[in-house]
Amino acid sequence: MSVLIDGLQYANWSERIFRQMREGGVDAVHVTITYHETFRETVLNIERWNRWFELYPELIFQGRSAADVRRARETGRTAIFFGSQNPSCMEDDIGLVEILHTLGLRFMQLTYNNQSLLASGCYEAEDAGLTRMGREVVAEMNRVGLVVDMSHSGERSTLEAIEHSTRPIAITHANPARWHGALRNKSDTVLRALGESGGMLGFSVYPHHLKGGSACSLQDYCDMIARTAELMGVGRIGIGTDLCQDQPDSIVEWMRVGRWTKRIDYGEGSAAAPGFPAMPEWFADNRDFARIADGLRAAGMGSADVDAVMGGNWLRFFETSFGAVRETDTSSASAAE
Amino acid sequence: MSVLIDGLQYANWSERIFRQMREGGVDAVHVTITYHETFRETVLNIERWNRWFELYPELIFQGRSAADVRRARETGRTAIFFGSQNPSCMEDDIGLVEILHTLGLRFMQLTYNNQSLLASGCYEAEDAGLTRMGREVVAEMNRVGLVVDMSHSGERSTLEAIEHSTRPIAITHANPARWHGALRNKSDTVLRALGESGGMLGFSVYPHHLKGGSACSLQDYCDMIARTAELMGVGRIGIGTDLCQDQPDSIVEWMRVGRWTKRIDYGEGSAAAPGFPAMPEWFADNRDFARIADGLRAAGMGSADVDAVMGGNWLRFFETSFGAVRETDTSSASAAE
Repeated sequence: MSVLIDGLQYANWSERIFRQMREGGVDAVHVTITYHETFRETVLNIERWNRWFELYPELIFQGRSAADVRRARETGRTAIFFGSQNPSCMEDDIGLVEILHTLGLRFMQLTYNNQSLLASGCYEAEDAGLTRMGREVVAEMNRVGLVVDMSHSGERSTLEAIEHSTRPIAITHANPARWHGALRNKSDTVLRALGESGGMLGFSVYPHHLKGGSACSLQDYCDMIARTAELMGVGRIGIGTDLCQDQPDSIVEWMRVGRWTKRIDYGEGSAAAPGFPAMPEWFADNRDFARIADGLRAAGMGSADVDAVMGGNWLRFFETSFGAVRETDTSSASAAE
Repeated sequence: MSVLIDGLQYANWSERIFRQMREGGVDAVHVTITYHETFRETVLNIERWNRWFELYPELIFQGRSAADVRRARETGRTAIFFGSQNPSCMEDDIGLVEILHTLGLRFMQLTYNNQSLLASGCYEAEDAGLTRMGREVVAEMNRVGLVVDMSHSGERSTLEAIEHSTRPIAITHANPARWHGALRNKSDTVLRALGESGGMLGFSVYPHHLKGGSACSLQDYCDMIARTAELMGVGRIGIGTDLCQDQPDSIVEWMRVGRWTKRIDYGEGSAAAPGFPAMPEWFADNRDFARIADGLRAAGMGSADVDAVMGGNWLRFFETSFGAVRETDTSSASAAE
């Protein structure tokens, strides 16, 4: 395999998991460092990552640019790229966009299921699209090189983000709704617009996003990827496993409930199954990416396309997405193309 | 003149001042971005700087390494290096040392006149030296490349910082106490230890640090520099004007009083003269550095030495001070030499 990049993980990080990343040959991972945390709480999470970088320099380091993915391959390590699943970390302060980018944030979701200051989440009954602040923040994210991620956003908000953003956006971890009609999965309309705008979709392995849930077969998953390549273009897709390895159930509650309700919200789960669902048997951890590559070949995908989906496409996207927009390009909608 | 670097300024920044920096040929300035501000308040100050960087890219940009000083010269701009005059910005959290360094902080005073969590200030009756946390924080500052600045610290704390730090420290803005016996000025013992350890002293132009105050003559100032070169070594000295241009008197109150007292503390001033003192006639703003260079030549200093004092020494210090310590050097006390 050429380069291997996972478009989203949120594990209970440990040396064990970092070693599994090396065993699996994972060159780079976009990791969620914050959900509903304030700016100061997010900084505490970064401090924890800094400790891991200090403790395990032979396994991981912080990724800031596409060049770091190549450096990871050359030095036999995994480059860790930070992301946020909600804009709580920037509070109500647009100046924090650049601050967070300086601290290494490379992806930020405009919403996590609920309405935010910026846009509507996919669990809201009404989606009013990008807010006034949302438009300002997307422009600022474009300026500094912080990727707009709409994985947990509503349909209209997502389409407006694709339209309004002057640089391609990402849906780092979701699947097509046509394949499995979860609220979190995306319509063909969204996927087509995403592909046409130069954006990226990362295919999730989180069971609630899979047809048949934990019982989903590898071949069904890979056939779905091959069909989506036809819809979006094979250059617009990658993997975004949404791997939540080793997490206690208390974490799924923080993800879903944060501090926005005093009741329990089960999100994609239910009262009968409130915790993390079991992973499909073919993807338990970072050592299983080769199985997905094999599955893609079995689904009829050529070797170059498999390489592109397993990491090449994300790498190309990283190359044009993480830097400040060049001044001469600010008037162009295709600045990062 | 070759490179021109000022070791400390805290002005009421504006386009006017940035243009004066260019007129004066100032390649780099260490600017104070925070005194008693918390971490979050310090980040707000950085956000304000980010706006200035965005608004005036043809005049200034953020400096992070010595290479940026050379870039400033090549592009006709001034590189701005961030510093803090008190450790309030890191609160009680050692993890914030690396976070602040990532945000560009390159100097941090362990104290500002008073006792801090880390050391004793020069206005305290008792100086108990580095605290337990102080020793930990100095080691962390050494690790990441954040320079220990003892300009406002007590004698014992300063000597212990020089001793405990594995990388040379700085006194960015002060003068010899033997020349002018202000509490803020430094004893020959401190200056000798600073020079022997590879550290740097920046000579202040703040009138309270000058013999004769605002009436101090340029020649008296430059003769003092020449004598200090003999004490410390001409490679260990630079300029650190402490220029507080265009500031309202309310700012000197924030510097002196912060939130630590409900009364007024006049610091280096007095009830009769509570505000900023008038600058000496030979140094009003960033356009006057050439006068100091001329004064040094008149004091008998050779051309190469004048160049070193006006910026060459700071540049060499920047080269070895702002990066992470190399792993192979961590056991050596001369890591950054």
